[in-house]
Parts: sequence; structure tokens; C-alpha cells
Amino acid sequence: MNQTIDRNQIEQLVRNALRGGGPSATPATGKSASAGGISPPGWIDGQPNLRVSISARHVHLTDEHVETLFGAGSVLEPDKDLYQDGFYAAKQTVMVVGPRRRMLPNVRVLGPTRNFSQVELALTDSISLGIDAPIRHSGKIEGTPGCVLVGPAGTVQLDQGVIRAARHVHMNFSDADHFGVKNGDMMQLKIKSHDCSVVFEDVLVRADEAAKLEVHIDTDEGNACNLDAACEVELRKDDCNCKH
Amino acid sequence: MNQTIDRNQIEQLVRNALRGGGPSATPATGKSASAGGISPPGWIDGQPNLRVSISARHVHLTDEHVETLFGAGSVLEPDKDLYQDGFYAAKQTVMVVGPRRRMLPNVRVLGPTRNFSQVELALTDSISLGIDAPIRHSGKIEGTPGCVLVGPAGTVQLDQGVIRAARHVHMNFSDADHFGVKNGDMMQLKIKSHDCSVVFEDVLVRADEAAKLEVHIDTDEGNACNLDAACEVELRKDDCNCKH
Repeated sequence: MNQTIDRNQIEQLVRNALRGGGPSATPATGKSASAGGISPPGWIDGQPNLRVSISARHVHLTDEHVETLFGAGSVLEPDKDLYQDGFYAAKQTVMVVGPRRRMLPNVRVLGPTRNFSQVELALTDSISLGIDAPIRHSGKIEGTPGCVLVGPAGTVQLDQGVIRAARHVHMNFSDADHFGVKNGDMMQLKIKSHDCSVVFEDVLVRADEAAKLEVHIDTDEGNACNLDAACEVELRKDDCNCKH
Repeated sequence: MNQTIDRNQIEQLVRNALRGGGPSATPATGKSASAGGISPPGWIDGQPNLRVSISARHVHLTDEHVETLFGAGSVLEPDKDLYQDGFYAAKQTVMVVGPRRRMLPNVRVLGPTRNFSQVELALTDSISLGIDAPIRHSGKIEGTPGCVLVGPAGTVQLDQGVIRAARHVHMNFSDADHFGVKNGDMMQLKIKSHDCSVVFEDVLVRADEAAKLEVHIDTDEGNACNLDAACEVELRKDDCNCKH
């Protein structure tokens, strides 16, 4: 993970050096931008750099549940860094078991651990599990269905926490300034893809100091617009006044 | 099937009778509308009646392939009528086998039979099968991947025909007149759904004499917008001049 951060920082420093070390081409704004020309997290050449990522089904766990599932003293072992600094796919997976003994055998655990455990599925997953998971934003799990998690060392009964994660966009405050939006606003994401272009509405802005500009959609959404073959992506403020 | 047609016709006749047998409230146009006030197929109260249907994965077969898969002399047995008159889900299913012996065990056959066999999958299905199925409109199968179909009486090797069906809208000529579109045009379908509204672009118009107004999307698309819980659907001409 540190390697990735370093590589990005070095890349940015080299770019700035090649430009003469001055400020970015587009005046950087927002709290993350320093006066010395270091761009906000994720920016390239003084501009936000939009990334759209598909979140496959995954699980977040508490420290306590990690120990129950993988054995006393166990901790999550990072396997692959995610784009957002500090987050990773762990080596560990769990089995998610639904109410009628239908199950998903190997669901990836994402780290770091959290204060509550949560299972994030696409609708296709939730249908195959037989769980009627509601669309929720991460953390809003009151009243959601539970499930059973099975690990090599034990099982956990979740009373709630199975959701379909609502689409959202991570960004830092400089990105938010760039788009003229603030935390909690809704945006639209247009995916131009041959024979299957889509406009996703209801994209929630989740802005903080350190995030890099990244939209998270689930596998159903990514497959509906064939994201891997998309020729253009555009994130825009939801402020069109036309009838559309 | 005839039962359904009769029921619809009777319903329409009763509606017209209650209105005094005169023409529809909105003047009916197009070739399917008779002067006697019988509405075009699928219309209710003199208006098009939009239906949005999810096409789950399915197979179309030739007469010859039906006999190979289900035994000499076999024909498709209608199990459930589809919304479009004359089309049905058959009692028969086949196993679809991909290149690495991954398979979908029970894929429904739709009738009536066709001049070529074709397998229609969602992208999620094609990933699980390990077949890189391209997005195509029905019938445009040149150069697409093949697969093996397995039935109770035999197997069929398809050299081509595995596609992801591109989204489209069936309509009759009166519907087309109503929307100001013609066969081959593209439309947009807006699905308003809590926290996951979507605008599907690239919806191909397939207009003929007898069709009822019905958009076909696949399971990935239906799940991406939670179609079952949608609060509003709108089909519109793709003619917006705004930046969106």
C-alpha cells in the first residue's frame, strides 16, 4: 500500500518537476491542494481524474468477527490495494449463507476492519442467496436482513447488515469544488458504451479530505453498461433543467 | 394463447361498448387501428400502454435442433404465453455448456421455433459460462461465439449464436406514430427507482403490424435499476438537444 502511495506521489512530483515545479495548469482549489503545486489526491496534470470501479460482492468485518471466523489473534492480511489509499482486499474470504441454505462460497473481505460487519451484494447475488437485500448507503444497515458468515475457524450470525450498496462517488474537497457539489449531493454518471449506453442517476457524493475521485457501482450496474468496453465516462452535476 | 388474445379482444370490446362503441378517446392512428374503434394491439383507453419486461436468459431453436435435443418427432410445448401474441416459454429447457465445461443447467426454450438457433444471455451469465458474448440484436449472429446445447435426447454444437441481446422496444405502427419514431430508430428508457434510477439509451425500435408496446431488457439491466420496485417508467424519443 505504501508502495502505491509512494509511486503516485513520485509520479506527481516528477510531473510537477517537468512542468518547472510550478502550480498545476488549472489552479488547484480546496483544502487538499498545497501552495507548492502538489495536486489534490488522484489529480493528474492539474485536473480530476475520474475512475469508475465495479465493486464485486464483499464483506466488511469487525476485529471481533475476524477472530471468530479466522481464529483467536487473527487479523486481516492485505492482498491487493484498492484505489482509495489505505483500503485493501484481504487474503481472507468467507462463505455467506442465506436463509434457505443457499450460499456464496468465497466472498472477499475488504480491510481495514470496521465498527460493524456488513455484507454488500449486487441484486443478482441477493436473488441467488434468497435474501431480499435493500439498497442502502454503506453504514445505513438498521432494519436490513442478516445472514450467517462461515470462516475456517468459526461462524458469525449477523442480525442485520446485508445490503445492496447504493452507487456513490468518493472525492476530495478539491474534486467537489471542481464539480460544484458538496458531500451528500447527487450526481449523474453517463457511461457511453456501444449499443448499451446508460445514465446512472442518484450517484451520492461522499466527499472527504483524502479520497480520490472514484465512482463505485456494483456488478449488475457494471454489466448493464458493459463498463469494461465503455468508450467514455462522464460525471456531472444533477442540475439539468430540460424535460430529460 | 388464443385464450389470451380472446380475453384482450373481449376486454377491448367491452371498453368500447361502455364508451358507446365509438372511436377511442384519443384518435387512433396507424395501420392497426380500424375505423370501428378497435384500438391498436396493447392499447388501453386509446393510449399506448408501456410494459417493460426483463428477458431472462433463454434459447431459440430450429425445428431440427428441437428433434435432436428432445427426440425425433418432438415439438416445443407451450408452457406460458409471453406478452407478445404468438410467443411462449416452452416446457422444455436445455443445458448450455461453455468452453471450459462450465454450464448453465436449465435454460428455458422460447417458441415458436426459428430458422436458426440462438442463445441469449446477460453479461453476468456469459461471465459465469466463460463465453465472451457480444451485444447484438436478435438474428445478427455472424461471427458470434458458439456453445454446446445438451437435451435429454441429444446434443447440438452451435458454431455461433451466443449473444447478449441488445435492449429494444417492440411496438406496432400506431405506437411508432404516437412516439414519432420508426423502425430502426433509437429511444431512451427512463426508470425511476428509489436510489437507483437509470436512463437506458440505445433502445432500438422494432416496429411491426402486430406487436404490443414492450421494452425488453436483460436481467443485469433490470437488476441495475431494481425494475420490480420502480415507481415510474418513461419511453422517449432520443432527441434532446440539451447538453445531457
